[in-house]
Amino acid sequence: MSDNLVITIGREHGSGGRYVGEKLAEKLGIKCYNSELVTETALKSGFSENFIADNEEKKPESLLFSIAMAYSVSGSQPVTMRLFNEQTKVIKELAQRESCIIIGRAADYILREHKNLLRVFLCAPLEDRISRICKTDKLSPNEAEKIIRKKDKQRAAFISFYSDRKWGLASNYDLCINTALFGIDGSVELLEKCAQSKMK
Amino acid sequence: MSDNLVITIGREHGSGGRYVGEKLAEKLGIKCYNSELVTETALKSGFSENFIADNEEKKPESLLFSIAMAYSVSGSQPVTMRLFNEQTKVIKELAQRESCIIIGRAADYILREHKNLLRVFLCAPLEDRISRICKTDKLSPNEAEKIIRKKDKQRAAFISFYSDRKWGLASNYDLCINTALFGIDGSVELLEKCAQSKMK
Repeated sequence: MSDNLVITIGREHGSGGRYVGEKLAEKLGIKCYNSELVTETALKSGFSENFIADNEEKKPESLLFSIAMAYSVSGSQPVTMRLFNEQTKVIKELAQRESCIIIGRAADYILREHKNLLRVFLCAPLEDRISRICKTDKLSPNEAEKIIRKKDKQRAAFISFYSDRKWGLASNYDLCINTALFGIDGSVELLEKCAQSKMK
Repeated sequence: MSDNLVITIGREHGSGGRYVGEKLAEKLGIKCYNSELVTETALKSGFSENFIADNEEKKPESLLFSIAMAYSVSGSQPVTMRLFNEQTKVIKELAQRESCIIIGRAADYILREHKNLLRVFLCAPLEDRISRICKTDKLSPNEAEKIIRKKDKQRAAFISFYSDRKWGLASNYDLCINTALFGIDGSVELLEKCAQSKMK
């Protein structure tokens, strides 16, 4: 089994996971996989990038809907489950191939047997996340809050469906950071220190 | 309002909170309050140290029992609630008086308005915690596991009774550390760095 260092970053929506991941990757000289996972999964699975972006990190819809979907497309599994299985393969191959950072997608659970894993979770108070999403997505605070609540609910349901874990529970991670207190750069600095001690 | 740095350390039983707190206090040149809070609360409240040690960090017993207890002793509140109120006063006074570390006792919630607060939560996989408790308390693995599960359940119920928070949920803390991955010394080093940036 490979001993590449894989850093998985779970995150509350709007807590800055993307920025922390990208900056940390640059500091460590490794790649950060976020939307790149959509492209990689599309290449390997035949699903379109649009379909993946709309359906990843979600649990299957209601059972009846899933069954209907399953038989309307080839194969016997709901398509979201087939998508999860394809993305699982991509994530496992990445971990075998290189040291890297993987944002979301239950990678901490998928790679639970990986030898050199740093499982990170980023969070921040709701008001800070609203403020970030307002800026990045050019939304009103009300719209931003709605999206944040919806995304967090989807991620929690996704994790709970595919694993026996509760999303955001400290005991499922190695390090959880409030990015509002430490800032994006402060969080990166903290993680860089932890990662360096594991890359030695 | 004082801007003393107060570091609160919530912890899963057996994750090494006491050791991390004591070593960190030594490095930072401040005091760590753990069982010292029992003594301080006894001095201020008139409750005996034994009573406090047996009843702190617990929610009141069933309502009927609490009512019976309340009227069997002076005052109109269940005694465990009066104990919580007394310990709350002691914790608030400490935060006003000095920079310090406070282990458990819902101090993160009690001091939620304090300006310079670092809310830490320590956790570790069950097997590591069993191993630590076996050594420190000279217990068999079975006995250690029973005590760990009981303590964690009590702490979760205590926090949920007195606050609107879920014990161990990452979003209630600023930094959560898996002490099994970082070790006691590694965790202390990480926290020292965070604390120093806040003590400047």
